[in-house]
Amino acid sequence: MKIGVLGTGVVGQTLGTGVVGQTLGTALVAKGHAVKLGARSAGKPEGVTWAGANGALASEGSFADAAAFGELLFNCTKGEHSLAALRDAGGANLAGKVLVDVANPLDFSKGMPPSLSVGNTDSLAETLQREFPQARVVKALNTLNCWLMTGPDKLAGEHDLFICGDDAEARKQVLGLLTRDFGWKPERVLDLGPLSSARATEALLPLWIRLYGSLGHANFNFHMNIGPAPKA
Amino acid sequence: MKIGVLGTGVVGQTLGTGVVGQTLGTALVAKGHAVKLGARSAGKPEGVTWAGANGALASEGSFADAAAFGELLFNCTKGEHSLAALRDAGGANLAGKVLVDVANPLDFSKGMPPSLSVGNTDSLAETLQREFPQARVVKALNTLNCWLMTGPDKLAGEHDLFICGDDAEARKQVLGLLTRDFGWKPERVLDLGPLSSARATEALLPLWIRLYGSLGHANFNFHMNIGPAPKA
Repeated sequence: MKIGVLGTGVVGQTLGTGVVGQTLGTALVAKGHAVKLGARSAGKPEGVTWAGANGALASEGSFADAAAFGELLFNCTKGEHSLAALRDAGGANLAGKVLVDVANPLDFSKGMPPSLSVGNTDSLAETLQREFPQARVVKALNTLNCWLMTGPDKLAGEHDLFICGDDAEARKQVLGLLTRDFGWKPERVLDLGPLSSARATEALLPLWIRLYGSLGHANFNFHMNIGPAPKA
Repeated sequence: MKIGVLGTGVVGQTLGTGVVGQTLGTALVAKGHAVKLGARSAGKPEGVTWAGANGALASEGSFADAAAFGELLFNCTKGEHSLAALRDAGGANLAGKVLVDVANPLDFSKGMPPSLSVGNTDSLAETLQREFPQARVVKALNTLNCWLMTGPDKLAGEHDLFICGDDAEARKQVLGLLTRDFGWKPERVLDLGPLSSARATEALLPLWIRLYGSLGHANFNFHMNIGPAPKA
């Protein structure tokens, strides 16, 4: 399908998570999707280089170009820029589309480790959904490094994704993409229901960041070890 | 050793986590520690029943009684009552002692699932430490159900504890207790350093609560799946 990826980019580079948008874009092209990478303006070096390296299915443009192009969209911008990026993309280009929100509301303004600019009783994902009610926001992939997002087998043993969103059909579509194109086993994608659960998954970042700091690398992920229900 | 457990109690009972203080107390008595369970006043039925059922090493009293008795203390009160309980216990009874803070700042006043009454740039553990600078606060055991706290083998597969505190010697002492008395493997207790990391571990509760809600039981725990550092 045609996919727009917003954020070319150096999302979370200071955390070592690297180039999320490019990594997702490359993985999606490899699976036969047509991908347009969107940035603040068309013709940015990162986007041009990426498109040149990834064949006929890969292209680049502005946020609005990518959003108009995609039947499904990924928000891979930095959390602090996400709302502005989606406004640039334009509500009409988001309407009716599944928008996978990969971003985190990290606030580096108070030093390291970052805090969250929104949380507890709200989330970045809900902020975006409120601003663009016609988009079908699904929070996913925000709790791990991008090389694991598109290659769960790179980390031995079980580890999990979390997914939530108010549109059950949209969650199902994203689950399909995660399993088919990125190689996730369905049972390793935990469906947390409504988009307000993004409060819980964005809240994992403070732990992620501290572990990244103490380990010195990002080759790790959360796993929920879930046993059987205890006998009454 | 002599251990004071504050909170007899129905900590988190609405979350199905049951009687944290009693569960920890029973496990500690079984390992030969003398345990005094503290409540808002001495002679509360829960405490009396527990002490009567757990032999000569078990006793009960007020928060102040338990805090004066213990060489090491556990805070198993509800987060919303923790500060008041410790004030009742009295700063002099906390001075110089390791205080294991098991509580979470859950705020049920806005309905379910609860939010956190403090977080992001602060934590309950730090709040307690600021109020009682002479206590040696170690945050631990707040991210799982109490039957798993004292029996990690009840859940098959790997799962983890998180520990943090500003006093490295205190963290080490708690790690010793967790491994020796509760059966945790040292490698499954992740040391997150300073007490400010309690912001990250208390922030796991929103996810824990949602999973508890969707699973309908509390027989699960977090595991960090940590791979080797990627080759440069």
